[in-house]
Amino acid sequence: MAECPLGMNGTSSCPVNGQEGEETLNYHSYLKLDKLLNSQVMQSGIKSQAVHDEHLFIITHQAYELWFKQVLHEIDSVREMFMLPMLDESKTLLILNRLQRVTLILKLLVDQIDILETMTPLDFLEFRLQLSTSSGFQSLQFRLLENKLGVLESSRVKYNQQHYAKVFNREDQLKQVKDSVEQDSLFQLVERWLERTPGLNFKSFNFWELYKRSVDRWLQDIILSPAEETNDPKIKEEMMAEYKKQKDSFDSVLDEDKYKSSMARGDRRLSHAAFKGAILISLYHDQPRFNQPSKLLSLLMDIDSLLTKWRYNHVMMVQRMIGSKVGTGGSSGYQYLRSTVSDRYKVFLDLFNTSTFLIPRAYIPPLTRSLKRQLSILCHDHIPGESSEEDNDDDEKVEGDTANGNGAIGAKVKFEI
Amino acid sequence: MAECPLGMNGTSSCPVNGQEGEETLNYHSYLKLDKLLNSQVMQSGIKSQAVHDEHLFIITHQAYELWFKQVLHEIDSVREMFMLPMLDESKTLLILNRLQRVTLILKLLVDQIDILETMTPLDFLEFRLQLSTSSGFQSLQFRLLENKLGVLESSRVKYNQQHYAKVFNREDQLKQVKDSVEQDSLFQLVERWLERTPGLNFKSFNFWELYKRSVDRWLQDIILSPAEETNDPKIKEEMMAEYKKQKDSFDSVLDEDKYKSSMARGDRRLSHAAFKGAILISLYHDQPRFNQPSKLLSLLMDIDSLLTKWRYNHVMMVQRMIGSKVGTGGSSGYQYLRSTVSDRYKVFLDLFNTSTFLIPRAYIPPLTRSLKRQLSILCHDHIPGESSEEDNDDDEKVEGDTANGNGAIGAKVKFEI
Amino acid sequence: MAECPLGMNGTSSCPVNGQEGEETLNYHSYLKLDKLLNSQVMQSGIKSQAVHDEHLFIITHQAYELWFKQVLHEIDSVREMFMLPMLDESKTLLILNRLQRVTLILKLLVDQIDILETMTPLDFLEFRLQLSTSSGFQSLQFRLLENKLGVLESSRVKYNQQHYAKVFNREDQLKQVKDSVEQDSLFQLVERWLERTPGLNFKSFNFWELYKRSVDRWLQDIILSPAEETNDPKIKEEMMAEYKKQKDSFDSVLDEDKYKSSMARGDRRLSHAAFKGAILISLYHDQPRFNQPSKLLSLLMDIDSLLTKWRYNHVMMVQRMIGSKVGTGGSSGYQYLRSTVSDRYKVFLDLFNTSTFLIPRAYIPPLTRSLKRQLSILCHDHIPGESSEEDNDDDEKVEGDTANGNGAIGAKVKFEI
Amino acid sequence: MAECPLGMNGTSSCPVNGQEGEETLNYHSYLKLDKLLNSQVMQSGIKSQAVHDEHLFIITHQAYELWFKQVLHEIDSVREMFMLPMLDESKTLLILNRLQRVTLILKLLVDQIDILETMTPLDFLEFRLQLSTSSGFQSLQFRLLENKLGVLESSRVKYNQQHYAKVFNREDQLKQVKDSVEQDSLFQLVERWLERTPGLNFKSFNFWELYKRSVDRWLQDIILSPAEETNDPKIKEEMMAEYKKQKDSFDSVLDEDKYKSSMARGDRRLSHAAFKGAILISLYHDQPRFNQPSKLLSLLMDIDSLLTKWRYNHVMMVQRMIGSKVGTGGSSGYQYLRSTVSDRYKVFLDLFNTSTFLIPRAYIPPLTRSLKRQLSILCHDHIPGESSEEDNDDDEKVEGDTANGNGAIGAKVKFEI
Repeated sequence: MAECPLGMNGTSSCPVNGQEGEETLNYHSYLKLDKLLNSQVMQSGIKSQAVHDEHLFIITHQAYELWFKQVLHEIDSVREMFMLPMLDESKTLLILNRLQRVTLILKLLVDQIDILETMTPLDFLEFRLQLSTSSGFQSLQFRLLENKLGVLESSRVKYNQQHYAKVFNREDQLKQVKDSVEQDSLFQLVERWLERTPGLNFKSFNFWELYKRSVDRWLQDIILSPAEETNDPKIKEEMMAEYKKQKDSFDSVLDEDKYKSSMARGDRRLSHAAFKGAILISLYHDQPRFNQPSKLLSLLMDIDSLLTKWRYNHVMMVQRMIGSKVGTGGSSGYQYLRSTVSDRYKVFLDLFNTSTFLIPRAYIPPLTRSLKRQLSILCHDHIPGESSEEDNDDDEKVEGDTANGNGAIGAKVKFEI
Repeated sequence: MAECPLGMNGTSSCPVNGQEGEETLNYHSYLKLDKLLNSQVMQSGIKSQAVHDEHLFIITHQAYELWFKQVLHEIDSVREMFMLPMLDESKTLLILNRLQRVTLILKLLVDQIDILETMTPLDFLEFRLQLSTSSGFQSLQFRLLENKLGVLESSRVKYNQQHYAKVFNREDQLKQVKDSVEQDSLFQLVERWLERTPGLNFKSFNFWELYKRSVDRWLQDIILSPAEETNDPKIKEEMMAEYKKQKDSFDSVLDEDKYKSSMARGDRRLSHAAFKGAILISLYHDQPRFNQPSKLLSLLMDIDSLLTKWRYNHVMMVQRMIGSKVGTGGSSGYQYLRSTVSDRYKVFLDLFNTSTFLIPRAYIPPLTRSLKRQLSILCHDHIPGESSEEDNDDDEKVEGDTANGNGAIGAKVKFEI
Repeated sequence: MAECPLGMNGTSSCPVNGQEGEETLNYHSYLKLDKLLNSQVMQSGIKSQAVHDEHLFIITHQAYELWFKQVLHEIDSVREMFMLPMLDESKTLLILNRLQRVTLILKLLVDQIDILETMTPLDFLEFRLQLSTSSGFQSLQFRLLENKLGVLESSRVKYNQQHYAKVFNREDQLKQVKDSVEQDSLFQLVERWLERTPGLNFKSFNFWELYKRSVDRWLQDIILSPAEETNDPKIKEEMMAEYKKQKDSFDSVLDEDKYKSSMARGDRRLSHAAFKGAILISLYHDQPRFNQPSKLLSLLMDIDSLLTKWRYNHVMMVQRMIGSKVGTGGSSGYQYLRSTVSDRYKVFLDLFNTSTFLIPRAYIPPLTRSLKRQLSILCHDHIPGESSEEDNDDDEKVEGDTANGNGAIGAKVKFEI
Repeated sequence: MAECPLGMNGTSSCPVNGQEGEETLNYHSYLKLDKLLNSQVMQSGIKSQAVHDEHLFIITHQAYELWFKQVLHEIDSVREMFMLPMLDESKTLLILNRLQRVTLILKLLVDQIDILETMTPLDFLEFRLQLSTSSGFQSLQFRLLENKLGVLESSRVKYNQQHYAKVFNREDQLKQVKDSVEQDSLFQLVERWLERTPGLNFKSFNFWELYKRSVDRWLQDIILSPAEETNDPKIKEEMMAEYKKQKDSFDSVLDEDKYKSSMARGDRRLSHAAFKGAILISLYHDQPRFNQPSKLLSLLMDIDSLLTKWRYNHVMMVQRMIGSKVGTGGSSGYQYLRSTVSDRYKVFLDLFNTSTFLIPRAYIPPLTRSLKRQLSILCHDHIPGESSEEDNDDDEKVEGDTANGNGAIGAKVKFEI
């Protein structure tokens, strides 16, 4: 699709670039096709006649690895933008676009499984024996991707009592795994960004307190009051039980201590502050300044969903190729893979679960005029020397400047993304 | 997804293969990932900072080329099976499966365009200038694919008055192009196979003559008779005009001379005998022996359709990236590409057009008992020394044994595929 | 896309059909669009202003129900063809085409979930309260589909201790559920058809015995012999353990008693005879007569796979809309749905597991000449009065004519499908 | 998927809603399934046995019409939001989400064609004759969609010399067509919104003039200067020709008179002011305030692309079902449909063509500090009584307040969307 600059595409006499005498770049050399198209060595062909379908097996896995490289390229660039002390808002669109691109690639990878599935189990058996121990379990890039997104070491399912990194024996590979574990994952970066959500720390608008009251009022309106009015004792009892259940559910996040207990139990991972930020963004996503942040949260869930869909479709294919019941026991590849299709591998699981805690629009606490204005301004900090009077409105006092970790940047609430 | 034989996948101590002392094959070495993942050299990064999206541009095109290689691998294997003097029927399923795999790959390639489209025109412009003359126009594999399927040199649209092969300057590349033109294309092989369709040459069942009569009877029933019975002269006139139109349409293929004239004009490409075979298969596709042949014809049309869909979606993307109106004239890349989305590039166009000449089931000439039996036997020729008495039934005489080009194989009608 | 007969599409003066004076059928009346497009009544709009996204919610579910009706139409027609005492082979292609159509529809239904997912949880909450107890759990057609495919009552996960049919309170609905349970499911019909697989009951070719020997030979060659030759006692021990594991695995199906024990435990569902038929077809799928049967088995697995993919994607969406952690316990809609994404709901699970018992082509017992010929003949029974001498060849004696349940049809082995 | 409020989904005893004594809404009654699932009347079944595949034909078209209704629902709501004198910026996200939903639906509709394609031409022929003149040409909703998006009456291809609305004979249908033509189309609304793009009318930043100079500088750098430096007269000549071509191309839009001439010729449709707005947004799409507008333009192109892809895939299917060559002339349904796959039917064609006029980032005129700040503020107009001092900065003077049609709203430049 490349074009000779300005429309003279495909001619060997494109005058603009040809003049320099150097060897002209062409499609073939640009894409390194000599290397790329000579990288398919069929093991079945080494000792006897190559098995036709091994070619498909190789190409499919190579296509996966190419796309994994692209996904890592995107995720790394997004992580870098998040790593800046303060997110440059002119980067917001870039972040969204790149994450959306990742979702499109992951969709393709899910579909790609259908192609490999055209190989019959009998055909696979013809060369499976020659593959020795080589296994998708050994994909370095896939492990890096998991780590960079934020899959926890402790959440991983062990396969044959073995740490996944044991299969990598090259220095450079081990180094990459190590770095991917140690560096800030996308999860951690997003968590810190959510903790800084503007609107969480205003004196004039105590979001969490107002939200609590709204929750109470809603539960009152839809369960408690009807329960009190009913005459049927059985229904009344059921409704009171339901009220209790809902109340407890909300309390588990409203109450910081209870929340922290769930964290300790591993039921929740996002810090309480970040969780509050996610709820705030979800409730007020119509506010201009929260449009893109809410889109971002949605894309993170898309990525999680698509990765588990990929895992699921992949395990379906494996079941088809090699079966799932080994007969008398012993963990099979199928069983290992099946166990990774689990919420344990969903990095942004807590975001999915925010839905449980939303309340209808009519109950959402209205924003103050000043906060509303605040949320209409995207970012003025990249214009140095600007005075922003509207931040000092009388009806609010910003608190927690240092607490929110942005003290270095100034005394005002910043909106990052 | 590769498995250690018999289920011990992913362990480094797979005992079956590890014992030989030779360097153990692993996922990384098997897939040549060192080569593969080091083949992305961004031109924009040579003189200044690499443009982020050039990476996507490279990966997408490389993924295309990997899949093109796979498609060629499949098409070549199918062509080989067709090239045998007589198709081995135990290969039928293979042919269908491989062509179906090709359709799945082509579907993926169509979807893949959406990913490249996430690049904005402005981003593309950032590195477009560095690409020199390299262009998708220069994809060798795509040209080979077109030729091996059977795109005619004479049907091709010239781009800037230039033959497509002029862009290839390496000996090996030119040789491949030359071979792809000279060797039998899938079109030619399918044409010859259609000419040998069993049922075309029976004394007791003159298919073409019976089909002609059925067509006449049908047109009589649905237009001519109602026309004669109507009292409204205007409607009568319209119906007679319609009858004339339909009659002429059918005559253009029923009459061999007229058919050959259309071939001479370039309106049809398939030989008359092959066209008759395609009609026969389509009308009797419920007969067991025609099940797979009809599926085959359907897959050939799928491939044609998908390739034009790919061309169409590709040109839509190019329009988005570089626009279509250059302003004051001059053929643009867009306009060239747009012109290739045309029936001229559909290799199996004649198969699409057989639909025009189908008649309802009630009018299809019934098969003779003997022919029906003939069409229930898949193949008996790979069992040497077998006498097939049913071929010599009294109610039919096979004619044209030598005419159908299979004289070498025996005096009986063969069913290939 | 409908056409006025023979090409005069879209004109109001199409002379062929207009003459009868009756009210002319048109697109609008044909598709009952007045009814169809007036069936979207938003509950949220009854008492206050309609919530925009409820429209999407209704349309999506209605589109599901339309397609479910189509899937039932196809599955019913396939079941009918299987119900005939002997499958008419001219129907084979029809069965395959209709099952393939079902897979395409199911793929669409999987994709359709993405559209509903564009609704935000907050938008859903706006009208969720008005939906009362109406729930996808109440889709009659989905239950019918499950039953007609063959989901076992005993495999179903209970939801809130309640049988799924309790939600249907209309006579006609309960009748439909009852019938769907009582009539032969596709599973049962396929099972009986597999039990009749030609090749299972030849004197001259004792398939199961030959297959057993091949399995032994294979395990000997790839594990036992190498184990004996190795000098490392640790590796030897590991290999012997692996041999034992594989041997036990094969024995669990080779030995009829062990197989029946697994059936009793609920580990396998297909009868042993049908299982043998499935293995036979898989191993010899290249034989012309097994081409379409192997394709059929593959489509049945596709349908199973797609239904679980649909269940999985659906549950992902539900998690997003309402969250999965209710907090303090109590089974949620999410948890119920999650539990249905399980092998318990896979009707043709045993077919997936045949892969475990395949052996490489080099070990597959070669067919006798006579059996090979047998497998080259599609069907001769729909040509009455035909004598088929080849069935009485000296090198084989057909046994079990009555046992295979086809005694009514004749003393010859029939090939159904 | 509907849930009993707060998680008690699927129980018949959901206490919250059941108490009112009124007939409980359930899935079946909510979705009007009695009406919906009784709307499939096969014409082939009226006089003789129904043709199995007519059911598919009906269901597919009904599914199309359901989705068309949803698309119209979305497009209408988007048009309404655009019709307000000034776009409420808290609606921006809604508009984007709804347009994106439209793209997902259109993608589904493209895929849906594959399902109908599983019908064979012979099967279609079995009931085609009974369909009389009913034709997809008669879909009211599709015509409304075209009109509401902005397909011009003058751009439409006539089919058999007949206006498309002639097929509608009911008052209510004709009224709907008339309204859809007369009301503001999405094209017109977007055009007016583009004309109001902030940044087009600043004294201190004469965008168009600065852009012109940048274009000149760029062409100078990449063609003119190299041309002057080259010694090869042939190359020099070619480069000068290329320069001339590019210069003319840019002039055709830079020069308002030339632009208006192209409009008069029908080559461009968007007003010059709107075109300038589109260029401005594209060049500065990284600016926070242009993020969502640029996304909007992108979605409009997606919709256009998908509609033409649908048209293209649809015509491919028609070709397969009825063929394209009628033989001796006369326009066929195929040929009509083929002619609608054309840029004439692309409503936002001018947006695609803006790509031709982009310039690399290094050449894009830098924004003034004041304008940058302007573009960082989403909207402050829904906070009444606010003084916005930053609009009156010394370094700019707003001109054209009344000209931009927003005089009623105030003396300041508004940013809509």
